[in-house]
Amino acid sequence: MSNLHSEIKKEFQLERLILFSDAVFAIAITLLVIEIKIPEIAEDVTDKALLHALGHLIPKFIGFIISFLLIGLYWTIHHRMFGFVVNYTPTLLRLNLLFLFFIVLMPFSTGFYGEYWGIDLIRNQLKVPMTFYVMNLVFVGVTNYFLWAYISNPKHRLLDDRVDRRIVRMGKLRSILVPCCFFLMLPVAYLSNVIFAVYIPMLIPVVMVITRRIVDKKKN
Amino acid sequence: MSNLHSEIKKEFQLERLILFSDAVFAIAITLLVIEIKIPEIAEDVTDKALLHALGHLIPKFIGFIISFLLIGLYWTIHHRMFGFVVNYTPTLLRLNLLFLFFIVLMPFSTGFYGEYWGIDLIRNQLKVPMTFYVMNLVFVGVTNYFLWAYISNPKHRLLDDRVDRRIVRMGKLRSILVPCCFFLMLPVAYLSNVIFAVYIPMLIPVVMVITRRIVDKKKN
Amino acid sequence: MSNLHSEIKKEFQLERLILFSDAVFAIAITLLVIEIKIPEIAEDVTDKALLHALGHLIPKFIGFIISFLLIGLYWTIHHRMFGFVVNYTPTLLRLNLLFLFFIVLMPFSTGFYGEYWGIDLIRNQLKVPMTFYVMNLVFVGVTNYFLWAYISNPKHRLLDDRVDRRIVRMGKLRSILVPCCFFLMLPVAYLSNVIFAVYIPMLIPVVMVITRRIVDKKKN
Amino acid sequence: MSNLHSEIKKEFQLERLILFSDAVFAIAITLLVIEIKIPEIAEDVTDKALLHALGHLIPKFIGFIISFLLIGLYWTIHHRMFGFVVNYTPTLLRLNLLFLFFIVLMPFSTGFYGEYWGIDLIRNQLKVPMTFYVMNLVFVGVTNYFLWAYISNPKHRLLDDRVDRRIVRMGKLRSILVPCCFFLMLPVAYLSNVIFAVYIPMLIPVVMVITRRIVDKKKN
Repeated sequence: MSNLHSEIKKEFQLERLILFSDAVFAIAITLLVIEIKIPEIAEDVTDKALLHALGHLIPKFIGFIISFLLIGLYWTIHHRMFGFVVNYTPTLLRLNLLFLFFIVLMPFSTGFYGEYWGIDLIRNQLKVPMTFYVMNLVFVGVTNYFLWAYISNPKHRLLDDRVDRRIVRMGKLRSILVPCCFFLMLPVAYLSNVIFAVYIPMLIPVVMVITRRIVDKKKN
Repeated sequence: MSNLHSEIKKEFQLERLILFSDAVFAIAITLLVIEIKIPEIAEDVTDKALLHALGHLIPKFIGFIISFLLIGLYWTIHHRMFGFVVNYTPTLLRLNLLFLFFIVLMPFSTGFYGEYWGIDLIRNQLKVPMTFYVMNLVFVGVTNYFLWAYISNPKHRLLDDRVDRRIVRMGKLRSILVPCCFFLMLPVAYLSNVIFAVYIPMLIPVVMVITRRIVDKKKN
Repeated sequence: MSNLHSEIKKEFQLERLILFSDAVFAIAITLLVIEIKIPEIAEDVTDKALLHALGHLIPKFIGFIISFLLIGLYWTIHHRMFGFVVNYTPTLLRLNLLFLFFIVLMPFSTGFYGEYWGIDLIRNQLKVPMTFYVMNLVFVGVTNYFLWAYISNPKHRLLDDRVDRRIVRMGKLRSILVPCCFFLMLPVAYLSNVIFAVYIPMLIPVVMVITRRIVDKKKN
Repeated sequence: MSNLHSEIKKEFQLERLILFSDAVFAIAITLLVIEIKIPEIAEDVTDKALLHALGHLIPKFIGFIISFLLIGLYWTIHHRMFGFVVNYTPTLLRLNLLFLFFIVLMPFSTGFYGEYWGIDLIRNQLKVPMTFYVMNLVFVGVTNYFLWAYISNPKHRLLDDRVDRRIVRMGKLRSILVPCCFFLMLPVAYLSNVIFAVYIPMLIPVVMVITRRIVDKKKN
């Protein structure tokens, strides 16, 4: 009875780590929309003027959608990852906080990237907002990789024994490939033209589908 | 024991999906109030000036109340829906995220609709903010319908066997009827007068009560 | 087994209602601080200028502290109340949402009240922000009373049988007395001087302690 | 069965206290980033201008990182502390709310400290923002100490019997030492030069590691 109780307590402590992360994910994903300010028109409010103002918000909306998808993606990865975890250590708490740090930063870097995503981007070849955004995503990916590596290290005894090791290897692979795709934006932007770099994130779903197919094939 | 453990783990994974959704709902419903800015009066602050300033906020308050009711309504629908779910799939996670995307967008579209809900609305026949708001609600309804359809598909084995199928059919019906009511606002606004469209959401409680009566009647 | 499962599911549905409310409470209590803007000094930043700017924020801080205490108080009341609840109904969900509506409104009314809590308050006898704030608190109290009344109604079978009925009666009494204290501010402000009304909330801790003493005495 | 049920209910009530605290922690840690406003450049947007604008944000980023680490640290302390708690009292609820009050205040004091952390800080020897920030952290530490003291008081029967008392003593020690480090900033700033005080927080990790080593040594 006493052992069962401390077992339940340990599980609740792990759940608390997970639900705290969920709350941070949920707030970060919802704060994204705060950076989209409601268009304010001082005088002569017409549908045309409002449409024009909304048009200026399109880059912000695209940034919002991409970042929503990415935070959502990392939440599902976090969800899958911790579905296998049966224990926790102080280091896991700290690694998870480090990972959440870069998640929390995303509303800012998304807003910054979206703010200067207009004609100026092409004319002045703006690379600073893109670099900031890409580096944020790279750090999200790298800390996510460290989480996978730490959790899957048999020395720490955090993983359920019955986990298919191939899924873990795939999780690690994906958490490296996605930031690599984003990182590719930087040489393209700095060496050729910023406008080409903008389209690279479209590779992400392709990479995701390919790795998912590999996982599904390996499972059967 | 081992099977029981993995059963508990699976349930916790489903709970995590639900509690993450709850956090997003809770933040979206609370952020609604952030768009109502405190009236600032530069000089000569009197009760009359403050009442006048509050008067200008009335459309924002109405928007806040309607959106609070709607997010609250969809939360209770989500609550009821997932009360029947006993399993999860990666696709359910993604569909749920898509649904949450349009919930997260609601503070923005509510604020946008409320911002231009004054004399300009009637004089200039503003249709853009209303269209944006209505389309947001339509997408909330449509993704909600997809969630019901996916969950109730026997192929996916997500539903508790003992669920009354009529409740599911009713859930699907309602998640289509509410956005239809809102969508009705658009032809009315574009073809006749914007001011008539504004009153259409008052049909929603009627539709809700009628479908609830039908559910209650069918249950007995 | 099947009954136990549906029993667990029912309890989880109730927990979900509670944790959703907790999230709303947590966000509302944290958003209070957002209304306190960081003082911005354009030029010649000195300690004296900063202290002066902080001095202007004192009413906002007082409002923040009072509202933090009040939301915290209602959270502990909600915590105690739902500690006795063993079931839920659709009406309970809706009543709870109505109660949360007025909790969510509190960051706005606190900010509004704190914004005009300076020399203008006394000189111009400002009653509008106070009335708004007081009415918000009155509605929080009244919806809280309705929650107690609904939950404790034996017809709805929501309460644990072993609950001491005197605690319920006391909960109802307190959820009426606190808004009454606040409501007292209005006749005082309108009939005599606004500055007297400001001190009335200091009665709340006295009322709380007295009712707590009565509960403790009745329990022994 | 009935006793087991009320036991489960009691545990859920404790969990609710914990998860509410987690939500407040999660929101406070995420709101930190809101105080970092996206740099807005009116005209002639170039990479150089953006880099320059980002440069001005460096103090804000440093403040964000330090406060993220501190809130994260107190969350892990809260996580460890409540891992030993098996019961709750109304006073524990109130003490915990008091502790959360100072956590909620942190986004404000971090933003205030970061806002005036430029050349003005050294030239005008600004002590007000630093004092505000330090006092906030001191109160976080002191209320954290009170939590440890209250929980570990055998009279209240809140602790699991099998807790190593040395861990509790260490928790209390650390929750006093960290605010002491910060408090040290004030005499240094007021008696010598503000710029020296700024580096004192670097002592915190050293203090943390030393106390952790002591805990680890004592456990073996």
